[in-house]
Amino acid sequence: MSTSDNVQTVLAYLRELQNRICAGLEQADGQAKFQHDSWQRAEGGGGESRVLSNGGIFEQAGVNFSHVKGTALPPAATAQRPELAGAAWEAMGVSLVIHPLNPYVPTTHANVRFFSAGDDDKSVWWFGGGFDLTPFYAFEEDVLHWHRTAQKACMPFGEQVYPEHKEWCDRYFFLKHRNETRGVGGLFFDDLNDWGFERCFAYQRSVGDHFLDAYLPIVARRSAMTWGERERQFQLYRRGRYVEFNLVYDRGTSFGLQSGGRTESILMSMPPLVRWEYNWQPPPGSPEARLYADFLRPRDWLSELT
Amino acid sequence: MSTSDNVQTVLAYLRELQNRICAGLEQADGQAKFQHDSWQRAEGGGGESRVLSNGGIFEQAGVNFSHVKGTALPPAATAQRPELAGAAWEAMGVSLVIHPLNPYVPTTHANVRFFSAGDDDKSVWWFGGGFDLTPFYAFEEDVLHWHRTAQKACMPFGEQVYPEHKEWCDRYFFLKHRNETRGVGGLFFDDLNDWGFERCFAYQRSVGDHFLDAYLPIVARRSAMTWGERERQFQLYRRGRYVEFNLVYDRGTSFGLQSGGRTESILMSMPPLVRWEYNWQPPPGSPEARLYADFLRPRDWLSELT
Repeated sequence: MSTSDNVQTVLAYLRELQNRICAGLEQADGQAKFQHDSWQRAEGGGGESRVLSNGGIFEQAGVNFSHVKGTALPPAATAQRPELAGAAWEAMGVSLVIHPLNPYVPTTHANVRFFSAGDDDKSVWWFGGGFDLTPFYAFEEDVLHWHRTAQKACMPFGEQVYPEHKEWCDRYFFLKHRNETRGVGGLFFDDLNDWGFERCFAYQRSVGDHFLDAYLPIVARRSAMTWGERERQFQLYRRGRYVEFNLVYDRGTSFGLQSGGRTESILMSMPPLVRWEYNWQPPPGSPEARLYADFLRPRDWLSELT
Repeated sequence: MSTSDNVQTVLAYLRELQNRICAGLEQADGQAKFQHDSWQRAEGGGGESRVLSNGGIFEQAGVNFSHVKGTALPPAATAQRPELAGAAWEAMGVSLVIHPLNPYVPTTHANVRFFSAGDDDKSVWWFGGGFDLTPFYAFEEDVLHWHRTAQKACMPFGEQVYPEHKEWCDRYFFLKHRNETRGVGGLFFDDLNDWGFERCFAYQRSVGDHFLDAYLPIVARRSAMTWGERERQFQLYRRGRYVEFNLVYDRGTSFGLQSGGRTESILMSMPPLVRWEYNWQPPPGSPEARLYADFLRPRDWLSELT
């Protein structure tokens, strides 16, 4: 296929994935609907942001599709490939962050993305993506289901894919200044092109297609649990770590903000309500302490929990 | 004076300034007291963090003193001064952020800092600091008082000091991705050493000493105003901008977090409660819209408002 055929194929998948995920989340929520917001980017391209607010289950869910274009790759991006200097480029993806109301339901993030530059004579492209889970009160059964589903998504592409992309996720979603992982991980990959386009794209679809399978059963189980002010306060406090990660470390966020991306779509990942408390520590032996001790560090869940 | 005499003189001032500011804020608050928290840094030095929480006026006020030391300047820090490579260094300062409860009382930040490296044979030092004001509902009378006090602090050091450091403040506290200043500015300076030690130190003291004069009259005037849920919600929303600035742009914060500083002391600047709302815009003609239109851009307050 030609470079532009590839782009069209990926775009069609991404639009369909955004629809499918929004429909699945609306059904799980049972009350609120996504509001759609199309936007254009002055330098080329645009996107569609979808936000569900104040739902029965989801305090806020944002599912963003974007397809941005440029007429000339900046020199810094082509230092390794000088023949592509000044080439036209396109970047496209679906990115979502879900902040549930019930503190027993974990926050989650998922993303699939594709980058393409040049034409059929000389071109470069790669896929990236993944999904990760951030519980406040974690359950081994949920973490096991999450990682088993991640492993299932990877398995057709080789036995090493899950362990490698699981470890990449642990490395990427790490808050150095807190010495904590952001959550219990999942999958993360970037710059994927050495399997050839067809196989890379099939893997990206597998990751995208497994997201709802990984998340919705956990939502169903945990949203039945009753919670009170204590759990809510801990959730708001832990959401501060999400903000810290996204604004201090996340490459997509800083690249987006610095490159003149659409601020409101990039910061859709911010939680609707957050708190910080100086020097707060979880009471020893509490369920809150258990999150830190047992879940906020890289672990080989599939072998340790089974 | 010797390099180490200079350091001792600055340290004595900083400790006294921390005491004086905390006493002034406690008196203004009338209810809560600062909790003191001394800490050591594994690589050398330490500090004392002081936090006042849930006061009558201040929802949270943090006043941090730190004095950190290193045995060898990293090469990147001495590219321009190779003769100082590997020299011992010390950095010290007082830094504060105040988040009032009443949305009519502005948030504020102030900082004075001193850096010294080397010995009497070959040494380098500089001062930095400033103070800036972040209102939610702004009053021209307050902005005028704030900038007049800033000008008064600068005047003994030359007529150009206020306009230069005022403009530096506007430039530094700017959220590019929002196209907004963080607030109505004030003073900002860094790398100050070309006036000689005595005069630079006198200027730093003048800035530090004028902070309470600049802030407390505004607190007294505005804390008498009644407020409701609308004002509270706008305050929580605007606090999101404070978080965005501090985590995305502030050099002190990112340097601190990346260099293994004490996380809880660095993130004392985070507001106790914050909210984000996708694509929120102030209603046209509202007091909230007026903040954006009239106050969140660089303006020559002293000539425009008088």
